[in-house]
Amino acid sequence: MSTNMRVDGARLWDTIMETAKIGGTEKGGVKRLTLTDLDAQVRHWLIGQCEAAGCDVHYDDMGNIFARRPGKDNALPPIAIGSHLDTQPTGGKFDGIIGVLAGLEVLRTLNDSGIETHAPIELIDWTNEEGSRFAPAMLSSGVFAGVFSRDYAYEREDREGLTFGDELKRIGFVGGEACGGHKLAAHFELHIEQGPILEDEGKTIGIVTGVQGMRWYEVTVTGMDCHAGSTPMRLRQDALVAAARMIEAVQAVGLANGPDAVATVGLIEARPNSRNVIPGEVFFTIDFRDPNDSVVAKMEDEARAAFDKIVEGSGVSVKCERIWDSPAVHFDKECVAAVEGAASSLGYPARRIVSGAGHDSAYIAKVAPTTMIFVPCEKGISHNEAEKTEPEQVAAGADVLLQAVLATDARLAPKTGA
Amino acid sequence: MSTNMRVDGARLWDTIMETAKIGGTEKGGVKRLTLTDLDAQVRHWLIGQCEAAGCDVHYDDMGNIFARRPGKDNALPPIAIGSHLDTQPTGGKFDGIIGVLAGLEVLRTLNDSGIETHAPIELIDWTNEEGSRFAPAMLSSGVFAGVFSRDYAYEREDREGLTFGDELKRIGFVGGEACGGHKLAAHFELHIEQGPILEDEGKTIGIVTGVQGMRWYEVTVTGMDCHAGSTPMRLRQDALVAAARMIEAVQAVGLANGPDAVATVGLIEARPNSRNVIPGEVFFTIDFRDPNDSVVAKMEDEARAAFDKIVEGSGVSVKCERIWDSPAVHFDKECVAAVEGAASSLGYPARRIVSGAGHDSAYIAKVAPTTMIFVPCEKGISHNEAEKTEPEQVAAGADVLLQAVLATDARLAPKTGA
Repeated sequence: MSTNMRVDGARLWDTIMETAKIGGTEKGGVKRLTLTDLDAQVRHWLIGQCEAAGCDVHYDDMGNIFARRPGKDNALPPIAIGSHLDTQPTGGKFDGIIGVLAGLEVLRTLNDSGIETHAPIELIDWTNEEGSRFAPAMLSSGVFAGVFSRDYAYEREDREGLTFGDELKRIGFVGGEACGGHKLAAHFELHIEQGPILEDEGKTIGIVTGVQGMRWYEVTVTGMDCHAGSTPMRLRQDALVAAARMIEAVQAVGLANGPDAVATVGLIEARPNSRNVIPGEVFFTIDFRDPNDSVVAKMEDEARAAFDKIVEGSGVSVKCERIWDSPAVHFDKECVAAVEGAASSLGYPARRIVSGAGHDSAYIAKVAPTTMIFVPCEKGISHNEAEKTEPEQVAAGADVLLQAVLATDARLAPKTGA
Repeated sequence: MSTNMRVDGARLWDTIMETAKIGGTEKGGVKRLTLTDLDAQVRHWLIGQCEAAGCDVHYDDMGNIFARRPGKDNALPPIAIGSHLDTQPTGGKFDGIIGVLAGLEVLRTLNDSGIETHAPIELIDWTNEEGSRFAPAMLSSGVFAGVFSRDYAYEREDREGLTFGDELKRIGFVGGEACGGHKLAAHFELHIEQGPILEDEGKTIGIVTGVQGMRWYEVTVTGMDCHAGSTPMRLRQDALVAAARMIEAVQAVGLANGPDAVATVGLIEARPNSRNVIPGEVFFTIDFRDPNDSVVAKMEDEARAAFDKIVEGSGVSVKCERIWDSPAVHFDKECVAAVEGAASSLGYPARRIVSGAGHDSAYIAKVAPTTMIFVPCEKGISHNEAEKTEPEQVAAGADVLLQAVLATDARLAPKTGA
């Protein structure tokens, strides 16, 4: 009978709109950077809702929140539903958020139906998925999976020099459990596609088979800051002109390795950043991605070669440091099959898809059977206040999540009796 | 015989080092912001030295100090030697200061040689040239030239909200004479170049023929911020890639209009400025300068055309707003000739040069025959505690100043008798 169960789509949508007020922007987006007071506010809200749903809630020493709904056998590792509540500086209402709130809706639906699962079901809010305040992204799921050490994470600094560790302590979310300290039987994540493919093909559900490989870089270009009025063009060591040529080179590298490769300079800072001073130093970041790891490596080689050529003989120097390398990820076959089966039995138009974006699931896949469920977002627009998806699409995704979790629970249950 | 006269270079250098203690910093610079107690201290020191040199000293209602050495005919307007004793927050020992102290050295040298000029010689310390405490810069020379009203100047506020008028009163330098109330026969200013040209060409003296025309712009490039991982290259509207091409175009425009033209993008801001978001908006500034106003106008036209071409069909838009236009200043031909003749007769390697930076002389040129003398500063570094110039260079500049003043005095003297 549980296969006919559906989530309450209206309740889920109302919950999404309720949390959207925490850090809500004039343009209808959300600005809720990780470990800020607004992040703390939404975390306390989530804990209250989960406790009201009968869950035991705790958080680990990375501030990852775990809300556990007991099962028949609480010695079994939990089947997890996780995503993140932090956002980009000009983020939307759905990126990450629907994954956590659909999980909450699944718990509420199970309560409403009086269903007792074999294994416990655990809702997780992963800390600092976005990485826009503290790079790199997916920091806490990375620590959970053993990709980063906790100390490395604690030392990450924002642009004001505040550390992740100090800010986590400031908002009061340093838990007693060591991050990674408990096992997950499986991990499911519902997320908006953040790309145009599902909408383009009229599909409601994306069955995510993996995540493309990606690398992040920090580039520092050093010249000489001099008076803009009294320094002739030929005697300049202009760090910004060199950086501009490098940005153009990054774009060219992305285009040359198409159609799947993407190359982005998202962040730039010039020093002293004064109207009448030639910039003496420029800092910028690079984000390279492709489903094929060797293409990502090729883009790095091509960019480095281009940068060396740009500064050659100019008196300007460049330091290009790779700060993050996330190889392509292939999700768990049985979890993917569970999602595919759920979409099919629920009759939603679906297709297999490779994620273009990084997600907490990309790291959790290293330590637990994992997959993701995508729903469409309008024009593929994301990391933008205009991010938009429909209530029916979110509800469909949550239904698939619910059924995939129940199918996995049935599959993992001890085969006993007749 | 006066053409063989030389200043006492050692005495001049000692005087510079003596005043450098008033507001001297650990790094060997000077912090002596206008109308502070340190400014008052150096003003009283200057007045004492000038009175000891036999000058009549008074100051006007902008606190500009005038120390007059009488001539044969004190009904003649004075030949002025002026600059400023205030500094940047992290300024050097020379910017402005050598112009005043070389003037003092000229008065002392005339005394030592018992020379009586036809016209009076007047040493001037202009108040608030730097503008770093009270913007705009060159405030009191601007009032003297009628560019600003005295009331406008009095109302200027520093970061603490203290006004120029109140602070001038506090340090006791509100004089009885209305600023601009007396005529100058000529105005000479010795200054460090604040650029690398003289050093690069091995010249000791810069014969300053004027100040460049300059225009400032604010440019906003608007695209669409989208997810860096899941937005294909061909579907992007990347504001930073477009801005990078514009920065390259600004550089090209500067080079194409050389050798004197300079074009600088000094300030840039990307939004949302996040590592994994394609920038949706970029703001940057442009500073165009050239001795010829028509070249500055031409650079603007070329840049606007290049910007339109860059955004054409890209889905990105650009707004380029001119926020400041300061026409070129052309110094007095006869004053320039006097400096050129002095450098030549003294045998100092010299070249004509146009000032890239603003100076009190740029405003005084509106109301009196004016020019400047530049001496090199190491690597062109200025507005910096590391500002450096050599004793021989300052002495050479002071010699040229002395001879240019004497030549001008001879030229202006009434042709009478045999």
